[in-house]
Amino acid sequence: MNRTVADKIPVAVLGATGSVGQKMVELLNHHPWFYISALSASDRSVGKSYKEAVNWLMPTPLPEEIGQMKVLPSKPSLKAKIAFSALDASVAGSIEEDFARAGYTVVSNAKNHRFHPDVPLLIPEVNPGHLEILKLQKYGKGKIITNPNCSTTGLVLALKPLMDNFGLEALHVVTMQALSGAGYPGVSSLDIMDNVIPFISGEEEKIEREPLKILGTFHNEKFVEAGFKISATCNRVPVIDGHLEAVSLKLKKPFSLEAIIDSLSGFRPDIAGLNLPSAPKQPIHYVYENNQPQPRKMRLWEKGMAVTVGRLRPCPLFDIKFHVLSHNTIRGAAGGAILNAELLLAKGMV
Amino acid sequence: MNRTVADKIPVAVLGATGSVGQKMVELLNHHPWFYISALSASDRSVGKSYKEAVNWLMPTPLPEEIGQMKVLPSKPSLKAKIAFSALDASVAGSIEEDFARAGYTVVSNAKNHRFHPDVPLLIPEVNPGHLEILKLQKYGKGKIITNPNCSTTGLVLALKPLMDNFGLEALHVVTMQALSGAGYPGVSSLDIMDNVIPFISGEEEKIEREPLKILGTFHNEKFVEAGFKISATCNRVPVIDGHLEAVSLKLKKPFSLEAIIDSLSGFRPDIAGLNLPSAPKQPIHYVYENNQPQPRKMRLWEKGMAVTVGRLRPCPLFDIKFHVLSHNTIRGAAGGAILNAELLLAKGMV
Amino acid sequence: MNRTVADKIPVAVLGATGSVGQKMVELLNHHPWFYISALSASDRSVGKSYKEAVNWLMPTPLPEEIGQMKVLPSKPSLKAKIAFSALDASVAGSIEEDFARAGYTVVSNAKNHRFHPDVPLLIPEVNPGHLEILKLQKYGKGKIITNPNCSTTGLVLALKPLMDNFGLEALHVVTMQALSGAGYPGVSSLDIMDNVIPFISGEEEKIEREPLKILGTFHNEKFVEAGFKISATCNRVPVIDGHLEAVSLKLKKPFSLEAIIDSLSGFRPDIAGLNLPSAPKQPIHYVYENNQPQPRKMRLWEKGMAVTVGRLRPCPLFDIKFHVLSHNTIRGAAGGAILNAELLLAKGMV
Amino acid sequence: MNRTVADKIPVAVLGATGSVGQKMVELLNHHPWFYISALSASDRSVGKSYKEAVNWLMPTPLPEEIGQMKVLPSKPSLKAKIAFSALDASVAGSIEEDFARAGYTVVSNAKNHRFHPDVPLLIPEVNPGHLEILKLQKYGKGKIITNPNCSTTGLVLALKPLMDNFGLEALHVVTMQALSGAGYPGVSSLDIMDNVIPFISGEEEKIEREPLKILGTFHNEKFVEAGFKISATCNRVPVIDGHLEAVSLKLKKPFSLEAIIDSLSGFRPDIAGLNLPSAPKQPIHYVYENNQPQPRKMRLWEKGMAVTVGRLRPCPLFDIKFHVLSHNTIRGAAGGAILNAELLLAKGMV
Repeated sequence: MNRTVADKIPVAVLGATGSVGQKMVELLNHHPWFYISALSASDRSVGKSYKEAVNWLMPTPLPEEIGQMKVLPSKPSLKAKIAFSALDASVAGSIEEDFARAGYTVVSNAKNHRFHPDVPLLIPEVNPGHLEILKLQKYGKGKIITNPNCSTTGLVLALKPLMDNFGLEALHVVTMQALSGAGYPGVSSLDIMDNVIPFISGEEEKIEREPLKILGTFHNEKFVEAGFKISATCNRVPVIDGHLEAVSLKLKKPFSLEAIIDSLSGFRPDIAGLNLPSAPKQPIHYVYENNQPQPRKMRLWEKGMAVTVGRLRPCPLFDIKFHVLSHNTIRGAAGGAILNAELLLAKGMV
Repeated sequence: MNRTVADKIPVAVLGATGSVGQKMVELLNHHPWFYISALSASDRSVGKSYKEAVNWLMPTPLPEEIGQMKVLPSKPSLKAKIAFSALDASVAGSIEEDFARAGYTVVSNAKNHRFHPDVPLLIPEVNPGHLEILKLQKYGKGKIITNPNCSTTGLVLALKPLMDNFGLEALHVVTMQALSGAGYPGVSSLDIMDNVIPFISGEEEKIEREPLKILGTFHNEKFVEAGFKISATCNRVPVIDGHLEAVSLKLKKPFSLEAIIDSLSGFRPDIAGLNLPSAPKQPIHYVYENNQPQPRKMRLWEKGMAVTVGRLRPCPLFDIKFHVLSHNTIRGAAGGAILNAELLLAKGMV
Repeated sequence: MNRTVADKIPVAVLGATGSVGQKMVELLNHHPWFYISALSASDRSVGKSYKEAVNWLMPTPLPEEIGQMKVLPSKPSLKAKIAFSALDASVAGSIEEDFARAGYTVVSNAKNHRFHPDVPLLIPEVNPGHLEILKLQKYGKGKIITNPNCSTTGLVLALKPLMDNFGLEALHVVTMQALSGAGYPGVSSLDIMDNVIPFISGEEEKIEREPLKILGTFHNEKFVEAGFKISATCNRVPVIDGHLEAVSLKLKKPFSLEAIIDSLSGFRPDIAGLNLPSAPKQPIHYVYENNQPQPRKMRLWEKGMAVTVGRLRPCPLFDIKFHVLSHNTIRGAAGGAILNAELLLAKGMV
Repeated sequence: MNRTVADKIPVAVLGATGSVGQKMVELLNHHPWFYISALSASDRSVGKSYKEAVNWLMPTPLPEEIGQMKVLPSKPSLKAKIAFSALDASVAGSIEEDFARAGYTVVSNAKNHRFHPDVPLLIPEVNPGHLEILKLQKYGKGKIITNPNCSTTGLVLALKPLMDNFGLEALHVVTMQALSGAGYPGVSSLDIMDNVIPFISGEEEKIEREPLKILGTFHNEKFVEAGFKISATCNRVPVIDGHLEAVSLKLKKPFSLEAIIDSLSGFRPDIAGLNLPSAPKQPIHYVYENNQPQPRKMRLWEKGMAVTVGRLRPCPLFDIKFHVLSHNTIRGAAGGAILNAELLLAKGMV
């Protein structure tokens, strides 16, 4: 499935010095379909080499040739077909639109356009059909697609087969979220060492809203949100990567615990046949050990793109309870965006 | 309220080398009503000085004169009126009964007798009336009282004024529990650094059951459990001390958020007039900062005996949501046991 | 030794919203000799109540009446006799001089004046005689005294009896320093969780220089630095409070390990008779357990004002090796400054 | 360089359930030259499937087919040519000799035989010539080779080019060692969270001795230790993987900092031409950032087999100071052992 060097698609990373931007750079290096043709960042970095501009946080060395690239302004004169946006929400809105109007395919991790009625909020395994929404966009050959918030992605991926098979009526979720979700420098060590912070600004609102769009339907040019209710509580814990979520769920149809596990482990998404390079072989792993899933031990399964679920059991108040774990900066951000771009390319939409 | 040295009550700590036992020793040193007259531990330690036998984990120095005490077997020949039991559940059952039969007042942190129909599961601010159950005991002048599990105590203390004022219908709680709750050596650092463990053996069962006894009623020699339903999910987080719990609650009566805060902050328990030395001046502190309560910042308020509550807000599925924090080895174990003993003494029951 | 309320000395905390300033506020609350009469901070905070202006990081609640105080500008019109300076080095220099010229006794934790030839770099147990330097100052009845860097204080306190008894020839020290030494927000959690940072800007230079002034001599109006050589390596470790230092030392005179322990444990400083409220009863505790001193277990001994030393043993390259631990924000900053002020007051120099 | 499946060498892992054993299993899975043909462990595990017997701690899933293997006793009837020993030192001595006598090539991580005069203490890049010692062994076609302690390996690798080019006279090293070095369950979380333990049993002795054998010479059937002096201080820090060491060094010959960096970065070991699968392309990476090397950021460079060095600067007491980082369970244990086996195979000695 690899493309020859000549065939690879040039891509830009907007906001390349931030933590999500860095993760995009790390994941796009040696990508079989894409190559990094441009890096942009804020004025403070423009003109410097990427190596000078970035405080490289990744556990792999900064590739020498990427370190030599010059950081450019986030303007639609970059040589690239796809613009991955790791921009801060304070500036992402207008910049992404500028790029779309200029004909770029904008694949964004920012929250700004997620709820625009003509923008897909995309998880390839969950709602690939939502790409149809793109025909409502007015950007000519340009376009904008978005991925959900890091705490939403893993959750919704696990919910998808349950909704398909059992129907969802009510969702109660309490998250224990990793530090990397707050960006860099993000959370002060003095705030989180030997501690939990029972609050993440804006996060509960996102989890209570995004799943309804993603799990909603689009046909006849109309979009309809999913109809179940969500209550979310978000906590920051001293974990570097990996959001763990304690879920209680009320279903619409009869179920057995065994059938639920089967539907999770056996979930084969519609995109399975496309062999997207970043797609996990098995999107959801159900783990039977009674003290799993744990962030440090499972966040990197399938290169951080799979979701692990465990501890399924009856709930005295809802129907079932379980834990979901997913890697927030890979599956929930940079890797999710890249997978979105792969889907577009595989469907001939770039 | 201090007693003169001559008046102080001699107390023994059973299981004094474990982590709860050590905390009892630390808290009983310089106690205004009690003095440590005996320390017991398992055969491995018997005969050694306490200093030799213990791996002292407390942040204060081991008091020299206590370090010199000889460790004795856990047998009812200790010179003491009260026996604080920090024994392991594997042995606590019969030893505590031996002590009670021999006339000691056994104040236990172990789980063994918590659900015995004639044993009070006591939180002085919540159910002091349950001491009446003692008349059902058959130990002569000896007796056994217990305190709840560390994750139950803080929760129930916060629930008490809410039950009194608004009625409880359903409780959903997700805990993020501290490492010291697992004893020593307890959780391996390789299991919990940069990690969360989504499971604590036996803990969910305790939280789903103990509150119903504590918040139940005893009159006419009959005991009736409280009638609301509970769903608990327990997680171990990399925090040394302080259990944080995310609570969702369905109430029976109309409420306003303001009235709930008032009932929490304004809670004045029946025992307030007794001026028990370990009782917090204000049992429940409501904190208004939107990112509180945090374990490291508030666990030691009122010497670790108060509970802090924060983030009260409506719940889309239940009525309200909030977080509760309490110090698990002080309020939830050693300090709770000592407060229980103080109540007995103040009531003339020792 | 307590003063009556009427006798207490009014003190101001300059830079009261920073982490050292907060610790000063915490330690000065209920101080037997001083009371907080004014709080200053930068323009951003001026005019607000202290409660509004501060992100309170201390583990005790912010005292209500102090929270109500209005934050004032750092100008010498504050009602106070002593000005404790927790100012940032970028502004401390001129502000402290303004206060001294206006007649205040400035007790500073900032580095700016530490090496001024007429300013004492003071540790009361080590070089109280250096207060004589004050007669060289030209501030009228005002004056400036400083305390050393947080990593210097504990080290020099442990070195003092060794220099007196055995002479110092060469000192090699590798530090493992706590996060609170970097202020707030200071070190990002993403930089230090599951990590060590082998560098602290400017720190090695301070440790290689400050001990020579403190352990030097002042007589006949002349100041002479101590003559031994120092090599320092500084590391930041994921510890909240407490600097641990691995020391190798070459002495000038014959020694035995026993004599060294005796000189440490038995160290009785000249100021012992003054009964300063913040002075530890025993400045240096030698601990015999082979895996001590540990930051979390001993940093708060004697309210954080004592130093613990352990693991004394021969060094194959120098003469001896040992570890020193001290609390960096108490002994090494806020508490050290307050002890300095107490010494001045006890000597009638305020 | 890959061998066909038919050509691969069958290897056993002795002590496969411990933490080093698990890391060996993880690294040997899909190894191009070896395949795991047997797993042994203690009686408690014998007869179970590996999946049942092991508490899998690795961040990658336990491979299904390896999980199905039956755990065997550590006796020389295993079907394998090479026996990797991750045995505990309490049993390794005699078991390893039994295997050697039975004709196996024993590649051991245990300390038992490291100082036996006929056993090489091997780091392939440093002292491959020591394999000559094997001719002194009396095991027939069997043999025993060992790798050094985890804190020794990275240090000696960095010292090798410095000894070759500048001569070593004295070495002072203070380590900050990771938790995984203590095995599992190893260090209790209550001992190390927010803490440093300034002691590791037996570790200082190993670092003060092992480098002298490894950097010594063997010719004319005689072994001569290297002649420089070493002082080591060992600390345990809250880091999962990666030993960081602060080194001060006295050299024998003139040097410049630039020449030292060149000798480190440019180090090309004699084995470079053999293209051993686990050998790092560049054994020593010098990093110029002033706050590096950091364990979490660089421990996995070159799959955990490279050493990083940084912060080279003059030392006021010795000649130079710098920090060395290496991955303790990969380079310093399991990966080091596998590299040793690869060297044997490449030299036709298996």
